[in-house]
Amino acid sequence: MTAPLNTTSEQATDVGPVIYVCVTCRPAGAPDSELRPGANLAAATATAAAGTEVVVRPIKCLANCTRGPTAAMRANGSWTYVFGGLDIAFAGALIEGARLLAGAADGILPWRGRPEPLKRGLIARIPPIGFHEVDG
Amino acid sequence: MTAPLNTTSEQATDVGPVIYVCVTCRPAGAPDSELRPGANLAAATATAAAGTEVVVRPIKCLANCTRGPTAAMRANGSWTYVFGGLDIAFAGALIEGARLLAGAADGILPWRGRPEPLKRGLIARIPPIGFHEVDG
Repeated sequence: MTAPLNTTSEQATDVGPVIYVCVTCRPAGAPDSELRPGANLAAATATAAAGTEVVVRPIKCLANCTRGPTAAMRANGSWTYVFGGLDIAFAGALIEGARLLAGAADGILPWRGRPEPLKRGLIARIPPIGFHEVDG
Repeated sequence: MTAPLNTTSEQATDVGPVIYVCVTCRPAGAPDSELRPGANLAAATATAAAGTEVVVRPIKCLANCTRGPTAAMRANGSWTYVFGGLDIAFAGALIEGARLLAGAADGILPWRGRPEPLKRGLIARIPPIGFHEVDG
């Protein structure tokens, strides 16, 4: 296994749960503004992560532009989840979801107990590197 | 860095470009059928991958259910891309895109030269593990 292109000394901080928040997002049709709703969400999520093991990373674009604000999450070895239609009020739900994902032995975010915004806002999920369906 | 939960002996085959194709997908509103459009797309993509370094993995659900058929792709260290609204005719475009992504030194699928279905069908992109914006 070769090293990923972007290996940095900070990589070790990303083996636990990570939430990526798009800082460019604004709801479709919303006027442009200096501080985007996505940036507000990133700030609120970072605040909500204080004291937890969750790392929050602001990202310039997650390319879910028509259904933002957007966040994605994964923990080492888990599936990756993308959520849209988020709101600053859902920062706590993101943290709760990331911790739930980190604790899932099968790497899958359980439906039961999943915060509501992470149910109705689900955009896509992607398997971890090396995953293949057992009978697929 | 701890080993991912799903480490298998097949993991070594996933360091090059991998395309995940949802085999459950059908276009919104389409009637149910025994062989789903997503399964057809997976088969066509596997055929198109013959003789290339691209690995095609059928996946039961990528959770992009309202905008399928769906595929995702990544190469080791690259960003992960999710595409929707796909058609069996786009199998070659998926292979072309995966090879383009594998050759991208920055891990980002270039817009220029990207096959058209991978432009208009873009659903989301997620950074690689360990990524953080340089000035983010």
